[in-house]
Amino acid sequence: MSLLVIGTVALDSVKTPFGEAESVLGGSATYFSVSASYFTSVRLSAVIGEDFPKEHMDVFNKHKINTDGLVTLPGETFRWKGSYGYDLNTANTLETHLNVLMEFKPKLTKEMANCPFVFLGNIDPDIQIEVIDQLKNRKFVALDSMNFWIANKPEELKKAIAMVDMVVINETEAREFTGTPSLVKAAKEIGKMGPKAVIIKQGEYGSISWFKGEVFSAPAFLLEDVYDPTGAGDSFAGGVMGYLAKRGEVNKNSLRQAMIVGSAMASYNVESFSLDKLTSLEFNDVVNRYNEIKRTTIFEDLK
Amino acid sequence: MSLLVIGTVALDSVKTPFGEAESVLGGSATYFSVSASYFTSVRLSAVIGEDFPKEHMDVFNKHKINTDGLVTLPGETFRWKGSYGYDLNTANTLETHLNVLMEFKPKLTKEMANCPFVFLGNIDPDIQIEVIDQLKNRKFVALDSMNFWIANKPEELKKAIAMVDMVVINETEAREFTGTPSLVKAAKEIGKMGPKAVIIKQGEYGSISWFKGEVFSAPAFLLEDVYDPTGAGDSFAGGVMGYLAKRGEVNKNSLRQAMIVGSAMASYNVESFSLDKLTSLEFNDVVNRYNEIKRTTIFEDLK
Repeated sequence: MSLLVIGTVALDSVKTPFGEAESVLGGSATYFSVSASYFTSVRLSAVIGEDFPKEHMDVFNKHKINTDGLVTLPGETFRWKGSYGYDLNTANTLETHLNVLMEFKPKLTKEMANCPFVFLGNIDPDIQIEVIDQLKNRKFVALDSMNFWIANKPEELKKAIAMVDMVVINETEAREFTGTPSLVKAAKEIGKMGPKAVIIKQGEYGSISWFKGEVFSAPAFLLEDVYDPTGAGDSFAGGVMGYLAKRGEVNKNSLRQAMIVGSAMASYNVESFSLDKLTSLEFNDVVNRYNEIKRTTIFEDLK
Repeated sequence: MSLLVIGTVALDSVKTPFGEAESVLGGSATYFSVSASYFTSVRLSAVIGEDFPKEHMDVFNKHKINTDGLVTLPGETFRWKGSYGYDLNTANTLETHLNVLMEFKPKLTKEMANCPFVFLGNIDPDIQIEVIDQLKNRKFVALDSMNFWIANKPEELKKAIAMVDMVVINETEAREFTGTPSLVKAAKEIGKMGPKAVIIKQGEYGSISWFKGEVFSAPAFLLEDVYDPTGAGDSFAGGVMGYLAKRGEVNKNSLRQAMIVGSAMASYNVESFSLDKLTSLEFNDVVNRYNEIKRTTIFEDLK
C-alpha cells in the first residue's frame, strides 16, 4: 500500500570525529522516504527553496519517490548545521535556518489524500492536524514530534496524537512529554492519549514499542564504525512505516518485524555521511542485516 | 559448581527521587553473592569493620553464603554515600570512606582456592592478580573493573585481564579503557588482551557480549518503577556467574542464557532499596522474569 510522508527536506552541514560534509542532502522526510522506498511506493510532501540543487532530485527519482508534493517556494532551502562529539549520541545544533520552511502549509493532492499509510514528521502539530483532516482513505497514520513542540505546543500535540494510530518519538522527548523517567510508563501514558501503538527510539540502543499492552525491545544493529548519525531516527521510521505499508496490516508480529527492519535501515544509514549508503542498497542487504540482528538476539529457554 | 567472589561489603547511604536509605547493607560482593546464591553455592571474600551490624550477617546466612572469607578488621566498614537524579542512570558519589578496605589483602583458604568459578570484583588489579595466582582448580574466572583503575593502573589491569576468561565492565569504562566509541570494537579490543568472553553492561539498556567472534544483545527487563539502581550491575554479574556455575560450562548458549538471568536479577534488585527485594525471591520468580524478557524479544523472520 502507498505511503505518504510529510516532513522536511534540508541542506545539512555536518561534522563528526570522522569527517565533515557541507550542504549535503538531508531532512527528516528525505531520510524517511528513501528508507521506506525499499518496501513500498512513497509520496513526499515537503518544501524546498530555489537554491535546491538539481542533482538532489535524482536521489528521489532513483528511488521512485513521487515528488508531486515537493513544493518549491521563493527563497532558500531549510538549512541545518550540526556536529557530533566522540560518543556520537548527541547532535549539537550549530545553526538552523528555517528559510522556506516557515511558509510550508501542505495541501494534499487527491492521490496524496488517498494514501492509506501516512507519516507526519516532526512539524508543527497544528499542521499535522490539518493534514490528518485532509486524509480520505487512512488505514494507519503515525506521527513524530520533537522537544520544541513539546515545550511550546503541548496541548496541540496531544490533540494531534489523539488523531493518529502510532507515535514514534525519541526517549528524551518521551520522558519530557510525559514527565516520567520510566520508558514503559511514558509509552503507556502516550498510548492513553489515543494511539494504539507507541515506539520510543533509544538511539544506539535500539527502540521499544508498546502495542495492545505488550512491550517489545528491538536492539540496534551493533556496528563497529559509525560515521554520521544524522538521519538515523528518520531512516528507522522510514523502515518501520515502509515495511508496515508493504505488509498492509499492523499487528503484533508485523510491528515487531517492522522495528527490526527499522534498525537495519538506520544501521546502514549511519555507515556514511548524508544518504550515500542508504541510496545504494539492494533489498537483499536489508534481509541480510535483519537476519544478522536476529542472530544477535536469540537465546534458549532457561534450564 | 561452587563460586568464589572477592569484592566489597559496604554500608551505603542512598538518596533517589523516590526515597532514601541510611547505612544500609551494600557493596559489590554483597549484591553479587546474594544474586548468585539463587543458582549455586557461593563463597564470599571481603572485609568488614567492627561496626558491621550483626543483623546484616543474617542476610548472608539466609542465602547460605559461606562467609569464612569475610574478615573483620579493627576500624570501620567501607562506607559509600550517593544520590541519583531523575533519570536514575548516573550515581553521584557524595562520600566514599574506604576505612578497613585499605587494609584488605584476600588470603584464600583451601576451600576458596578450590572454587572452579571465580569473580573478582572491581578491586585493585594487583590484588586481582594475587588472587588469581592462589587459585588451584580454576575453570572460569571473570573480573570487573572501574574508572579509577583504568586511569591509575591501566598496565596492571591489562595484566589481570590477560589472566582471566571473561571481563564484565560497564560501557563508559569500556570506551574509556579502549579509546573507542564503538562498543563492539571495545569488546574486541578487550578480547584481544586474552579473555574469551567480554560483557559490556549498558545500565537500563541491558548488555552486550562478545564471545568467540559473536555478538549478543541482552535487553534489560523494562520496569515501570525503579526505586534504587544501586547494585544493579553487581546483581547482574551475580546472576551471570551464578547461572554459569550452576551449568558448569560456558558456551555460546549458556552465556546468552546467563546474561538474561543477569537482566532478571538486576531488574528485581532495582525494585527496592538495598537488598530488600533481592533477598526475598523464589527461584520461580527468576524463571518467570526470564520468560517475560524472552516474550519482549521474539520476532518472526522477514516476509
